[in-house]
Amino acid sequence: MNRPLEGSWAQVIDYLNTLPNEIVSIDLPAGLLADKHTPGNAVVKATRTFSFESPKRAFLFPENAERVGDWEYGSIGLHLDFYNKTETPFHYLTRHQAGLLLRPRTKFSHKGTFGHALLIAGSYGKMGAAVLAARACLRSGAGLLTVHAPRIGFLALQTAVPEAMYSPGHRAHYWTETPDLQPFQAIGIGCGIGQAPETAAALEEFFRMMESGNSGTPGLVLDADALNLLAQHPHWWRLVPRNTIITPHPKEFERLFGKTADDFERNDLQRRKAQEHGIFIILKGAHTAIACPDGACWFNSTGNPGMAKGGSGDVLTGLLTGLLAQRYAPRDAALLGVFLHGLAGDRAAAEKSERGMTAGDLAEAVGKVWNW
Amino acid sequence: MNRPLEGSWAQVIDYLNTLPNEIVSIDLPAGLLADKHTPGNAVVKATRTFSFESPKRAFLFPENAERVGDWEYGSIGLHLDFYNKTETPFHYLTRHQAGLLLRPRTKFSHKGTFGHALLIAGSYGKMGAAVLAARACLRSGAGLLTVHAPRIGFLALQTAVPEAMYSPGHRAHYWTETPDLQPFQAIGIGCGIGQAPETAAALEEFFRMMESGNSGTPGLVLDADALNLLAQHPHWWRLVPRNTIITPHPKEFERLFGKTADDFERNDLQRRKAQEHGIFIILKGAHTAIACPDGACWFNSTGNPGMAKGGSGDVLTGLLTGLLAQRYAPRDAALLGVFLHGLAGDRAAAEKSERGMTAGDLAEAVGKVWNW
Amino acid sequence: MNRPLEGSWAQVIDYLNTLPNEIVSIDLPAGLLADKHTPGNAVVKATRTFSFESPKRAFLFPENAERVGDWEYGSIGLHLDFYNKTETPFHYLTRHQAGLLLRPRTKFSHKGTFGHALLIAGSYGKMGAAVLAARACLRSGAGLLTVHAPRIGFLALQTAVPEAMYSPGHRAHYWTETPDLQPFQAIGIGCGIGQAPETAAALEEFFRMMESGNSGTPGLVLDADALNLLAQHPHWWRLVPRNTIITPHPKEFERLFGKTADDFERNDLQRRKAQEHGIFIILKGAHTAIACPDGACWFNSTGNPGMAKGGSGDVLTGLLTGLLAQRYAPRDAALLGVFLHGLAGDRAAAEKSERGMTAGDLAEAVGKVWNW
Amino acid sequence: MNRPLEGSWAQVIDYLNTLPNEIVSIDLPAGLLADKHTPGNAVVKATRTFSFESPKRAFLFPENAERVGDWEYGSIGLHLDFYNKTETPFHYLTRHQAGLLLRPRTKFSHKGTFGHALLIAGSYGKMGAAVLAARACLRSGAGLLTVHAPRIGFLALQTAVPEAMYSPGHRAHYWTETPDLQPFQAIGIGCGIGQAPETAAALEEFFRMMESGNSGTPGLVLDADALNLLAQHPHWWRLVPRNTIITPHPKEFERLFGKTADDFERNDLQRRKAQEHGIFIILKGAHTAIACPDGACWFNSTGNPGMAKGGSGDVLTGLLTGLLAQRYAPRDAALLGVFLHGLAGDRAAAEKSERGMTAGDLAEAVGKVWNW
Repeated sequence: MNRPLEGSWAQVIDYLNTLPNEIVSIDLPAGLLADKHTPGNAVVKATRTFSFESPKRAFLFPENAERVGDWEYGSIGLHLDFYNKTETPFHYLTRHQAGLLLRPRTKFSHKGTFGHALLIAGSYGKMGAAVLAARACLRSGAGLLTVHAPRIGFLALQTAVPEAMYSPGHRAHYWTETPDLQPFQAIGIGCGIGQAPETAAALEEFFRMMESGNSGTPGLVLDADALNLLAQHPHWWRLVPRNTIITPHPKEFERLFGKTADDFERNDLQRRKAQEHGIFIILKGAHTAIACPDGACWFNSTGNPGMAKGGSGDVLTGLLTGLLAQRYAPRDAALLGVFLHGLAGDRAAAEKSERGMTAGDLAEAVGKVWNW
Repeated sequence: MNRPLEGSWAQVIDYLNTLPNEIVSIDLPAGLLADKHTPGNAVVKATRTFSFESPKRAFLFPENAERVGDWEYGSIGLHLDFYNKTETPFHYLTRHQAGLLLRPRTKFSHKGTFGHALLIAGSYGKMGAAVLAARACLRSGAGLLTVHAPRIGFLALQTAVPEAMYSPGHRAHYWTETPDLQPFQAIGIGCGIGQAPETAAALEEFFRMMESGNSGTPGLVLDADALNLLAQHPHWWRLVPRNTIITPHPKEFERLFGKTADDFERNDLQRRKAQEHGIFIILKGAHTAIACPDGACWFNSTGNPGMAKGGSGDVLTGLLTGLLAQRYAPRDAALLGVFLHGLAGDRAAAEKSERGMTAGDLAEAVGKVWNW
Repeated sequence: MNRPLEGSWAQVIDYLNTLPNEIVSIDLPAGLLADKHTPGNAVVKATRTFSFESPKRAFLFPENAERVGDWEYGSIGLHLDFYNKTETPFHYLTRHQAGLLLRPRTKFSHKGTFGHALLIAGSYGKMGAAVLAARACLRSGAGLLTVHAPRIGFLALQTAVPEAMYSPGHRAHYWTETPDLQPFQAIGIGCGIGQAPETAAALEEFFRMMESGNSGTPGLVLDADALNLLAQHPHWWRLVPRNTIITPHPKEFERLFGKTADDFERNDLQRRKAQEHGIFIILKGAHTAIACPDGACWFNSTGNPGMAKGGSGDVLTGLLTGLLAQRYAPRDAALLGVFLHGLAGDRAAAEKSERGMTAGDLAEAVGKVWNW
Repeated sequence: MNRPLEGSWAQVIDYLNTLPNEIVSIDLPAGLLADKHTPGNAVVKATRTFSFESPKRAFLFPENAERVGDWEYGSIGLHLDFYNKTETPFHYLTRHQAGLLLRPRTKFSHKGTFGHALLIAGSYGKMGAAVLAARACLRSGAGLLTVHAPRIGFLALQTAVPEAMYSPGHRAHYWTETPDLQPFQAIGIGCGIGQAPETAAALEEFFRMMESGNSGTPGLVLDADALNLLAQHPHWWRLVPRNTIITPHPKEFERLFGKTADDFERNDLQRRKAQEHGIFIILKGAHTAIACPDGACWFNSTGNPGMAKGGSGDVLTGLLTGLLAQRYAPRDAALLGVFLHGLAGDRAAAEKSERGMTAGDLAEAVGKVWNW
């Protein structure tokens, strides 16, 4: 279907939606466009939708939540060759796909093999974000972790995360200067750093250090206040290294790239910006979307609303940084990290409940989902 | 039965109570009034009482513990319509009733959907109360939590509760000033705050901020020293916002509202005060009673004496604040919070024991009882 | 048997002990005196001993470990009346005996019902002792706990034991002054307090406060450095309140009461001193012995060598203080506390192992053994 | 086979290695030398190797990982006498061998029986190393543990490891002076101490204290920065006490003893140095090698690549120090410690996963593997 329903069809649907019955849609709820925004009300509000081969893009956006209801999909026997040859930039990140990205951990490897991650995180009142990111990073399989944090963070970090080394900042309360980056294969910046002017200056200086090339080319993840600062200083975009992974939630995305009329437009904008800046944009949400520099866009299949809590994002940043430290390619790290983050959320919800789980549970659960 | 037994009946009962036998009462122990205070000794001391349809109010008060013994109730086949039509302000809060209050956690929700809670808690020597309240709040399903505490609380909070943000107070040892309330959907005040004069002033200033209306109308929970301070400044009552939830234990209740002759009078007073101030009064005890502004009074069915320990109340306050942050109506938050708090207590007692469980176990257990 | 074996019997036994065979003794290993010290070598070294009705006192002392081997006992059908009428000051503290001491936790009880415990514990470098004692106390069923500790202990306590209130001392590093004792039903002093002269003075002042009677008559437990200080100031003995519980290990016992020639003499001395001072002396060891002011002596049946680690004693002190706070009679608290402490040790060893368990595991396990 | 393959045999092997097939070798992959370095490419790259009686030394080195693949060995019925009589300095440390080293924990033992361990560990930013070493030591069965650390380490240690006593250093940030060594049966030095010049001076002073003999002859473990400092001051070697255990990873080994051409040469060098200095050299890796002063060399059979993470080495040091404190002979401590460390790693990997486990999990797991 390519255009919205009108006239008497629309009236029938309006009527259907007033009934108390459970409505099951096959393929697509009547009136819903599969691949673009469907305005207006002339769309069946299905309780449940069964679809074929793979989920339609329309299923993956909040704007259609009420129309699609719970959905599932199954094969109708399309030949796999046909399926694989259908070129599309849109992919659904399944257990199988994620499994292909996992690399073995070989016997004679040592902690150097698995890289050294650096997290620049935390500020006065937000040290917990650093703790959560560090815990997730430690459960990512990385060999070594250093957390650079303001001096006030020393005790919280060394008590709560004894496995991580602590690199003390110059100031007590916020990030002002970047340590030598030579030892690190991956850097994650932003969790709980706040937006002090000195921190903004530190972030700009960091970008210039990266640009100088003296620090090698470590993988980079930007999150939270690093993104908010970037949104305030759009001229820094030219300093952001290629293949950087950024992980905005919808509000941060809007601050960075502006408003859009609907979820399809937002997804298009996300893909365009990923190509324009040569970066990976992970837009967090129910079906987290990962836009790649080559135009591809993956939608995640794991996770649950129990993760809609402060600190979940810090866990993702720590995990992604840990994967990059192990020299996973940025695309593989982005996909695997998002998938595992959701899987850990599902594990935590199974152990506690969606309501009762915390971001701390989520970070712990990262350690338990690798042998999924 | 409407009046106490006298004469030879009373003698028979006196005699019965001297026997070593187990006594089983049906409906009510002989001599006990169902709905008002029964003075004197002319009441059978039952080992066990079987009652019908619902527990009598007399069963729910400490003064009758020795008379009613262990009690149960079952249906005798009264028609449900009859039962539902019987108008009474008194309700027994069962698993079924509580279940009706639970709201789904929908797929495309995000942390903003679940609100931002503020706890004003802790002082030098009582930071643990803030930690316990925060832990329970984090397991309530709320999206974000900020704990405002004296400066000395920074480390305890950021180490023990990394998921919570910390808002530092102006003074090292106690609460003196209220942060901007704009971001918060719910506020819980009182756990471990102490009664320093500056803290009393801060509480009054807080009430005036709320009265000004510039802070929106966040849900409010008052507990512990906030109640003790309120008891010392009764003229503040006119500043207490409508629909505030207060959670006194019996001594705090007495300080607030005065002594009563018996448990029935106390219950009546509780209901009157809830109506007078337009608030919810949760009187904590074996069958915690929740008096509503409309005159209704609910008695809780969950919980056990293992919860009779320092810190249990802090857990309740954290949980209630977290429910309000999620925009549960104050009545629903009060009922659901009390019910879940008791259920968590039962869970902790099952895992450890009534004697061996701690308030920390209770806070953890809150995370596990949502799928009851 | 009343006297050591001599002559050819002794030679036979010498020969037996050279054999590689497993030796099983019935009743008593040949040559061993049941109730007094057996000198010399003319005693069979049994691999295993089966005894009747109850263990002999000789089985319970280290000096006979090699002679008795593993032992068990069973009934040979002595009439219970006979058994109960046999007067002896010596008792074996079994699961059954301990069970008789447990009091129910009634439904309408509240935290006040279960008392307020005070621990005076910790010093710079030994704050962990305070943490361990506090954890055990919180798992004793007590209603409230306050820990009075030097100022440097604030954070360790409020982070690690949020359920406990903290009463800050006047000095940073050690105990110098006692807080108002009015609120407390039980006081435990000594874990990790060190032996600074100011601390000695504080202890003496504490005894005088107790003597003045203005502090009511809270239960009292003295342990560790409180005992070492008492050993250095024997004139304080007259200040030690009646019914105080002291918990020396063998070295502390020796410092307090002097050396003895053998384990029987030590046991006699222990009983005499308990009577002389009107106190309970808990001599810690494999079969911890509890000497009562009335001359009775109980030997504990629970526990294992995995508890032979730093911190185990702190756990016992916390537990005993918590029991006294609940107004268990000192004798019952002493017996129940020692029994449960050993049971918790057995539980921790079952979960980890004797070697791998820590005192922290032991404190946690106290919470799990109440429903034994 | 004693020399590399050449000519047409080599060609056959080159061809075999290009095939996609799975290759199973019996006894040895064709072309591989069992007991010395095999240069070049003329060696079959087996997917799997089945060998006889015991693994060949060649299987145990990284350089042959690709050639041997996964390997197993089984008995072909060689008479045990023959096997035991074959003299070889090389041993494979199996579950059975390690089991022979375990000593019973007897009933009447007390905390003194199990010794007092001292860890000198931690510096500003690396206090976590001290925490991890302490946790492992506490799970080693030792009776008492003191951690000597810079003043800044007080809180991290007393909160995270309450069972350990804390001995404060003179300086805030690093180790500068050694406490009285009299009370200790074993000392572990190096985890996270850094390489400040004052720390180097402290280490030298420590060696001189040991040399003076006034400190008795406690067991000694040197690790991490203690080894790096020793590498910078080779003239200290004459001060290193006999029977010291050192635990370098390959890079630290190289700094201490220089580079070698291949893994066999490194193993030879390790054995020579152990004999020369009269010490135990534990070279950490997939099959950790323990070289003894008498020329013997043991290869460990437990462990997995999940242990290739920062902090694993600290756990080993803590465990070894705890075993020495219990007066295990240095050789037995070295073998048992390495074996248990690997077993704990296998346990942690089974509970979490190789990727998801942390060094903290490893330290915890040490407590659970004693009853293997």
